Amino acid sequence: MRVNIPETGQKRIVIVGGGFGGLTLARKLSKSDFQVILIDKQNHHQFQPLFYQVAMAGLEPSSISFPFRKAFQNHPNIYFRIAEILKVDSENNKIVTSLGIINYDFLVLAYGAKTNFFGNEKIEEKAFSMKSTGAALDLRNTMLSDYEQALIESDFDERQWYIDIVIVGGGATGVEIAGALAEMRKYILPKDYKELNAKEVDIYLIQGGNQLLQGMDPKSGDTAEQYLIERGVIVKKNSRVVDYDGEYVITQSGEKIKAGKLIWAAGITCNRLEGITELSYNKANRLLVDKFNRVENYENIYAIGDMAAMISDEFPLGHPQVAQPAIQQAKNLARNFKKLNNKEDWKPFKYKDLGTMATIGRNKAVAEIGRFKIKGFFAWLIWLFIHLYALIGVRNKLIVFINWIWNYFTYDQSLRLIINPKSTSNRRKK
Amino acid sequence: MRVNIPETGQKRIVIVGGGFGGLTLARKLSKSDFQVILIDKQNHHQFQPLFYQVAMAGLEPSSISFPFRKAFQNHPNIYFRIAEILKVDSENNKIVTSLGIINYDFLVLAYGAKTNFFGNEKIEEKAFSMKSTGAALDLRNTMLSDYEQALIESDFDERQWYIDIVIVGGGATGVEIAGALAEMRKYILPKDYKELNAKEVDIYLIQGGNQLLQGMDPKSGDTAEQYLIERGVIVKKNSRVVDYDGEYVITQSGEKIKAGKLIWAAGITCNRLEGITELSYNKANRLLVDKFNRVENYENIYAIGDMAAMISDEFPLGHPQVAQPAIQQAKNLARNFKKLNNKEDWKPFKYKDLGTMATIGRNKAVAEIGRFKIKGFFAWLIWLFIHLYALIGVRNKLIVFINWIWNYFTYDQSLRLIINPKSTSNRRKK
Repeated sequence: MRVNIPETGQKRIVIVGGGFGGLTLARKLSKSDFQVILIDKQNHHQFQPLFYQVAMAGLEPSSISFPFRKAFQNHPNIYFRIAEILKVDSENNKIVTSLGIINYDFLVLAYGAKTNFFGNEKIEEKAFSMKSTGAALDLRNTMLSDYEQALIESDFDERQWYIDIVIVGGGATGVEIAGALAEMRKYILPKDYKELNAKEVDIYLIQGGNQLLQGMDPKSGDTAEQYLIERGVIVKKNSRVVDYDGEYVITQSGEKIKAGKLIWAAGITCNRLEGITELSYNKANRLLVDKFNRVENYENIYAIGDMAAMISDEFPLGHPQVAQPAIQQAKNLARNFKKLNNKEDWKPFKYKDLGTMATIGRNKAVAEIGRFKIKGFFAWLIWLFIHLYALIGVRNKLIVFINWIWNYFTYDQSLRLIINPKSTSNRRKK
Repeated sequence: MRVNIPETGQKRIVIVGGGFGGLTLARKLSKSDFQVILIDKQNHHQFQPLFYQVAMAGLEPSSISFPFRKAFQNHPNIYFRIAEILKVDSENNKIVTSLGIINYDFLVLAYGAKTNFFGNEKIEEKAFSMKSTGAALDLRNTMLSDYEQALIESDFDERQWYIDIVIVGGGATGVEIAGALAEMRKYILPKDYKELNAKEVDIYLIQGGNQLLQGMDPKSGDTAEQYLIERGVIVKKNSRVVDYDGEYVITQSGEKIKAGKLIWAAGITCNRLEGITELSYNKANRLLVDKFNRVENYENIYAIGDMAAMISDEFPLGHPQVAQPAIQQAKNLARNFKKLNNKEDWKPFKYKDLGTMATIGRNKAVAEIGRFKIKGFFAWLIWLFIHLYALIGVRNKLIVFINWIWNYFTYDQSLRLIINPKSTSNRRKK
């Protein structure tokens, strides 16, 4: 069955996924001569870099989300549908979605990446990940419920299970969560859970390599590590988690850590799509694209962002899987699409590195912008302003800003709500 | 098993339920000589009068919720536990909860009321109610998902099922929801769902009696009705809904309305509690209490708020089941508890009517304060400020205030997020 979308006579660009890449592309094509159809599993764009603050009860999902329909209110050539892509039929220029069939003139794949558990199904089943606001809320609910349970648990070992947390992966996400958890232990727990001994709460950060924040300079990694150690985080480098049964986290060296929560931030991968030849993928399941983001072996299928691998001497594995390449590729592709009508030559994509950064806690961050390596309060301020600037929606910027100011001066926030009633019960199997 | 709470040697007051009554009582006892234990099913207080704005995507649950632990941070004599009461053992001064046994010297029941479906299980199964933020979010998710489905539904009758809404009950909740829905149809739908014909969306408000807002003066009810009719709401008075199978709403006169959403706001009742004699209840399942809120037939068990019925000539059925009596009874009871140590005489409760009000939409409300009957913009302003004032937490007041200002000037908000992934699929059984 064909999805009910009017035929306008315009050439149709179908965009799959409304993350940084897909949303930017749709917006940039809003005043073009194309009919643009965006599909996404959710009805709203999510600002991934702040998922960890949702998990740590610092922000509400709504503050970092923006409804697609609102974004497109004044753009009559853009159509939105909540749908999931199931299959591409490239011979007939159509995709099969959960809603039905949609035909296209140009198809742009932009549905991003998912957590990579490297095939370990036991960990996948038991671990928390950080790839959606739903997952972030799930972690928040569980963490708060577990503190409640720990209060009434008199056995020391049992209590450890409720309160200890192991984070796997020392990239930006892992570092930021570890920092936020350590601040919660220091500022919130002694006030909210007076009956708990905050010193009993252990936070582990486990990193496979010998440096945190491996995309950054070793100095930045060392600074971040120093910050975390000062906050009491147990940082284990050159260590890998090989198993987790919900009871003990097991590392490669055989160490056992009793913990009820394992947060997995150790890597991402992409979903392969039925109908796209295997020849178009690299080993990391990213789609090989040319300088114009066109998927290899296809004429009118494109990929941008995390799922695209544009190989070059500078980036032999493709660009970093973060927001900036996605946004820049979307802008480049939009410009190129618009050239079609004038038969102009397309412009190849050129990545402009705007810098990388990670925040560890109040007044503490590391940033690398061009040749400059910055740390401490100033890096933290830059981090705040860049993230505020990048958030979509004036209301969101305002609400997040107020929350941050509030949290900064009160050392506290008041979002520690367990909203999902299912999580309030004891999740321990006894 | 006894719940792990330290014995402090103080007399122990156990409060069941942290609504307006329970939370006020705990706070007023925070500097007393009692050990106070508050139990609630949730970890946060919820501001019920604004649930309907959560359902209508005007506010987030967090803006009208406040974590109990945060409210009690500086009150070492107050203990909080997430637990549900199951039974009272009044002979041994203890209650059985979902966590275990808690003993008490004084027990205060303050767990409020629930939706009354008058025994109609089919309606109870299919209808939406408005008694928790969870229920309000459920209605929001369903409504937004249904608009998405309506877009791709080409059959007129089928589309009606997705978009038409029937509200049962013309009290403040029903009137406020109907008004908010009508404003959404007028201001939001034409912008967000351009492909839908907003004129196809029908909103019904069904009221059993011959006046809306029956607790108020007939003039106020007429004004509210007039406002709703101007906004295009179909108001049916002297009508009762007798059946709903998820497909058609059936009224007493045999009228059938095809609608996928029935919102039930037609009455409340209370849960009876095991261990309390039937003799202590009135017909509406409220606990009969004396002038000191003591439950009939018990020495040291009290009830306040919605579940208490303090019979008097002025209130032969008990006080109205709204916030003010609960708050005032809590204050009175706290004062009386404090007199115990000085062996002073207790002071009987005296209700001070601060007025009643309901808002229908922007610039439109009705209010009765003492002898004054106010309507329109001024009543609406009073409504706004009283609700802002009553919200707990400075941050909540600020965020709600910003949201309201924002919505007022933009005729819009950006909270139309479907967060629960389960609701995004088609809920129609075909």
